[in-house]
Amino acid sequence: MAAMFRKMVIAGVGLIGGSMALAMRERGLVEEVVGYGRGEKNLRVALKKGMIDGYFLHAEEIPNRTDFLVLATPVQSTAPLAEEFLPHLEQGCIVSDVGSVKAMIVRDMEKLLPPTLPFVGAHPIAGGEQWGAEAARADLFIGQRCILTPTRNTDAAALKKVAALWRKVGAKVEVMDPELHDRILGLVSHLPHVLVYALVTLMSRAKVGSTDVIQYCGGGFKDFTRIASSRPELWRDICLMNRRAVSKGLGDYIRTLERMKRLIDSGQGAALEREFALANEARRRIS
Amino acid sequence: MAAMFRKMVIAGVGLIGGSMALAMRERGLVEEVVGYGRGEKNLRVALKKGMIDGYFLHAEEIPNRTDFLVLATPVQSTAPLAEEFLPHLEQGCIVSDVGSVKAMIVRDMEKLLPPTLPFVGAHPIAGGEQWGAEAARADLFIGQRCILTPTRNTDAAALKKVAALWRKVGAKVEVMDPELHDRILGLVSHLPHVLVYALVTLMSRAKVGSTDVIQYCGGGFKDFTRIASSRPELWRDICLMNRRAVSKGLGDYIRTLERMKRLIDSGQGAALEREFALANEARRRIS
Repeated sequence: MAAMFRKMVIAGVGLIGGSMALAMRERGLVEEVVGYGRGEKNLRVALKKGMIDGYFLHAEEIPNRTDFLVLATPVQSTAPLAEEFLPHLEQGCIVSDVGSVKAMIVRDMEKLLPPTLPFVGAHPIAGGEQWGAEAARADLFIGQRCILTPTRNTDAAALKKVAALWRKVGAKVEVMDPELHDRILGLVSHLPHVLVYALVTLMSRAKVGSTDVIQYCGGGFKDFTRIASSRPELWRDICLMNRRAVSKGLGDYIRTLERMKRLIDSGQGAALEREFALANEARRRIS
Repeated sequence: MAAMFRKMVIAGVGLIGGSMALAMRERGLVEEVVGYGRGEKNLRVALKKGMIDGYFLHAEEIPNRTDFLVLATPVQSTAPLAEEFLPHLEQGCIVSDVGSVKAMIVRDMEKLLPPTLPFVGAHPIAGGEQWGAEAARADLFIGQRCILTPTRNTDAAALKKVAALWRKVGAKVEVMDPELHDRILGLVSHLPHVLVYALVTLMSRAKVGSTDVIQYCGGGFKDFTRIASSRPELWRDICLMNRRAVSKGLGDYIRTLERMKRLIDSGQGAALEREFALANEARRRIS
């Protein structure tokens, strides 16, 4: 089978970018992978681990004949980075991303890139609290969702090719409107991060008498707050770029808490148990 | 080494009660263990698994010469059950519990029991979402905290004996005022349960357009909301019995969320990152 891509550049060889490189190479989907990034140390890890064949540190050094550019940096950098690469890209190069926020990125990229450089927005829902090339692995996407967010401007052939690539590395591909993506992910992913950051912040400051409460946060609390180990600057950007959805989710959540607080304050056991049981049942359905 | 107790009755042979039985037998701390409960099926499991030597279903059938009674039922049942057992207990029998809420239980038990039946409040912080004798294991308490909550009325010899028992099954024993216990646990344990129940409740009802959001709650969300698998009726009781602390924690948390929402709404990236970074750092310290 011929490779799908001749030369792929991955800008940001982190957990997602590095895993894409590994997964695509393992399946012979790409002939050559070149890394780009600001941190040379991470790129050297990627090189040593066989994710990339080489790397470069300045956008203008992007190799000739690159036919696939994947922007796998934090979401705030996606469009600015595309702008840096733009003068050096060859006609027909497919540009894609892996960002957790889509509407703003898709809008910016469509403004920026000419029709000869087709853009396909993508969000593989995989990963976790680890980061960097060190954490990358070839099987990261197997069985995971990858949401593609084309618009009416998206090149059909490029979309088809990117969808095929994600399917081949094991992902379940789903096509969704970018705004819809952001509203859903704002609730199921971005909101929980804010909630956990807020809880750990609260705990880190809480005192009962002269006792620092944080020293009692073991076991279950540690598991539950694992997502607060994620990189703060990434989640700051995600929250700001998906501001409307996250803010609306937060508002709805605060109202839900206020309702529970009223039930607790007034000792309405039956109603409280109904709320908890509803959650318990919903939790069972997603397991 | 002589056993510490001759005959122990465990009322509620669930995850905690069953594990106590296993751990104490394994270390020869008790000669005979008898189970009490309302569900005969669970008691048969406990018998088959060698946790107990026998069981009974009515309080008045409590065996003669019981010298240790452990109330390991849901917190709302602790005092009512002690009342049922009271006429049938022999002088000198130490009574203890394992409840997640202490102030109200300690107060009720001290009112109820005469000085000849010394009570020692205990809360082994172990367990999780599983329940029933089926889930019990001898090593459950190793390395875990067990908080004892004596008052000035507590019999010193009984306290010493119960503390020794918990140390011998591997727990790190800590002595704490019952009110202080409830305020701390209200924050680090009870509050997170309410937050997660509220989040899953919100998700189970959320729609974006015609899409049920819950179907996108996979992976990280599932891990993060694991505590919503806990039994709703247990947590209802804990929240109501520790109403003041849980309600205050909820109020503080809602205010923390409102502050984060304002930062997001007004796009204050630097301040938002500071909050997230503080949480990230605090999370690292508890790991």
